[in-house]
Amino acid sequence: MDQRDMVRKMATGAKKASRTLSILPTDLKNQTLRRMAGQLRQKTRHLQDENCRDIELAEAKGLSNAMIDRLTIKDETIEAMAAGLEEVALLPDPVGRVTSMGRRPNGLVVGKQTIPLGVIGIIYESRPNVTVDAAGLCLKSGNAVILRGGSEALNSNRAIAAILAVVLRDCAIPEAAIQLIPTADREAVNELLLLDEYIDLIIPRGGEDLIRAVVAQSRIPVIKHYKGVCHIFVDESADIDMAVKISMNAKTQRPGVCNALETLLVHENIAETFLPVMAENCRTSGVVLKGCERTRAIVPNIGKAAEEDWYAEYLDLILAVRIVSGIDEAIDHIETYGSLHTESIITKDYRNSQRFLNEVNSSTVLVNASTRFSDGYQLGLGAEIGISTTKLHAYGPMGLNELTTTKFIIYGNGQVRS
Amino acid sequence: MDQRDMVRKMATGAKKASRTLSILPTDLKNQTLRRMAGQLRQKTRHLQDENCRDIELAEAKGLSNAMIDRLTIKDETIEAMAAGLEEVALLPDPVGRVTSMGRRPNGLVVGKQTIPLGVIGIIYESRPNVTVDAAGLCLKSGNAVILRGGSEALNSNRAIAAILAVVLRDCAIPEAAIQLIPTADREAVNELLLLDEYIDLIIPRGGEDLIRAVVAQSRIPVIKHYKGVCHIFVDESADIDMAVKISMNAKTQRPGVCNALETLLVHENIAETFLPVMAENCRTSGVVLKGCERTRAIVPNIGKAAEEDWYAEYLDLILAVRIVSGIDEAIDHIETYGSLHTESIITKDYRNSQRFLNEVNSSTVLVNASTRFSDGYQLGLGAEIGISTTKLHAYGPMGLNELTTTKFIIYGNGQVRS
Repeated sequence: MDQRDMVRKMATGAKKASRTLSILPTDLKNQTLRRMAGQLRQKTRHLQDENCRDIELAEAKGLSNAMIDRLTIKDETIEAMAAGLEEVALLPDPVGRVTSMGRRPNGLVVGKQTIPLGVIGIIYESRPNVTVDAAGLCLKSGNAVILRGGSEALNSNRAIAAILAVVLRDCAIPEAAIQLIPTADREAVNELLLLDEYIDLIIPRGGEDLIRAVVAQSRIPVIKHYKGVCHIFVDESADIDMAVKISMNAKTQRPGVCNALETLLVHENIAETFLPVMAENCRTSGVVLKGCERTRAIVPNIGKAAEEDWYAEYLDLILAVRIVSGIDEAIDHIETYGSLHTESIITKDYRNSQRFLNEVNSSTVLVNASTRFSDGYQLGLGAEIGISTTKLHAYGPMGLNELTTTKFIIYGNGQVRS
Repeated sequence: MDQRDMVRKMATGAKKASRTLSILPTDLKNQTLRRMAGQLRQKTRHLQDENCRDIELAEAKGLSNAMIDRLTIKDETIEAMAAGLEEVALLPDPVGRVTSMGRRPNGLVVGKQTIPLGVIGIIYESRPNVTVDAAGLCLKSGNAVILRGGSEALNSNRAIAAILAVVLRDCAIPEAAIQLIPTADREAVNELLLLDEYIDLIIPRGGEDLIRAVVAQSRIPVIKHYKGVCHIFVDESADIDMAVKISMNAKTQRPGVCNALETLLVHENIAETFLPVMAENCRTSGVVLKGCERTRAIVPNIGKAAEEDWYAEYLDLILAVRIVSGIDEAIDHIETYGSLHTESIITKDYRNSQRFLNEVNSSTVLVNASTRFSDGYQLGLGAEIGISTTKLHAYGPMGLNELTTTKFIIYGNGQVRS
């Protein structure tokens, strides 16, 4: 069978399965997730053998150590995947919740009830744990899922998918509930993105190039973020210690992720006291600063930030710094160069805190806290399937609820329209 | 300036205006809507003069009387447009509502707050009242809007847009808040649909061909429904009088709209008592029936429903009828041929009412009520900007709230991640 026929068959199967999944009892979903966790733990050796094949191929291809590290399934990786499934089993079922209900003047009782989206396609890069995480979240939310992992992880992902498939069969759930595209062929993805008749949502996870390619091609709605150029604005009234602590945490606690700080905006009236302390902290933590002219007048011996630095998502221990005249210029900067991801203000001023919260329309806006909290787990969603900077449907970190939609349910007793 | 430059300029202007609009005080929005209503009433004569030019062109082109009727701005049309704006002014502001807020274990207070989507493009066909309705709903929800009406209504739409623009200026709201593409050139729409950097949502309203063309071309998320193939399932236990009354209302109260009944599914155990009464009602109301073989055995002298009839959106006094063995076959039929729009069950049976509500995942599902209630006003949304059968973001009738999204707002006091 050629690639396109194969993908089309997977999509029709997923759509059929989605009907069963949408009314699956919560208990059965939770039992299945727990059995999957158990099977992953039991098959550790087999998974690692298959993973070794991927690692050998990656080494032969000369992939970087960082890439190989992300690809490697350690004992802890398997335990984390299994524990993740068990956590999802503990979360409330997002399906079947009535989110509002009320009586109309004509006696009709009108409610809204959550239902699964249907079929979700997830396109991602090398980490094999995404295969398990995404499968678990989609199952819990009653969605069928078609997974397309990176070519480097193909053997690992196949081994994981085979284990999950056995559990689905044992639990009498259609196997088409969780399907992995078993090849690295590009044609398969191209076909997948055309099948808007069967697939309700595409979530791409990976680098900006992958995501742009998916968006350009897809006929199916895509939820995504291209990048996270996150800002902290240190206001005139900021507590200096707090501003340093939060800025350092946002930059260094995990620099390679999308909610890490990339640009620091500093009020001109606090710059001379704040920046020297901040610069010293950066020096001892190995953070390289790139500043505007006014910043460089206060902190000499740092590089000059060029126009492109304000757009940059470094994902590294580099920080762009700009001095601004106040909150208006800070908000203007964020509007101009930001990515609608996450921004934080450090301030003691009531009015500015409210202005920042209300006027900055990025998906997550904070006062006096690290941008690193822009994360499904940290915000209490219980899980995270991705982060959206597209305003439609979900904006910001997405949990289980964001994998559902609502239908209108209406209880009548003979009403007609006049 | 060429078409593409013009549209691009409109889009960048709209995006700039959207920032002001997102924090516009509710009072100012409501005053503006009321002044627009007043100006429309005052300029009745001018509007009708401009409308006459469209009507003369339409007559010269030989458009149907029905088309010309929809195009005509009568005195009542203007009064309805003005009253519509005044109603929107009375609705609660959908922007700035905090939809949830709670404290995390680390003391962060995490909330979600509604914000406008940003810039909305609306592409529609001949009725000029859409220009006013859409402009009013977008203004109230803090969105900038770019309107592209049908070529037949160009003079009328221009005249309306000019009146609204004067009011915006008088109220010190950026005129780019409401912009009409002032030409009928196809190239302008083609360009518009590429501008995902500036435009957040496209809503096409019109025939299926228009909508399919927009979906195929757009890089911007589209909310739409292609058609409404709405079903009523008359269950074994249905009250015959109620089943007839609701079915007739759903078919005949306004047959040309998307929530009108198109296919009637009848339980085999009630068919012999229900169908003759229904057929007699249809005969006196001029509804032409097309039946499956079993239906024709009970109601002779009606046409045969072919496979394509089950997919048909007649928008006319024609009704397809099929006898089914029970609720499972009814749901299967709806899954196979339906359009995810609106379905109703007529029943006295508790279990079947619940199964229908839970297992049918169309955007609106009713028990013992007419499909004609699938409408923003009827369901209490206060307004309707369209109906969505796309599950992302909004599903079913869309009101003001569906023109907003939510951002995370987070109140901290120095929290960092560990």
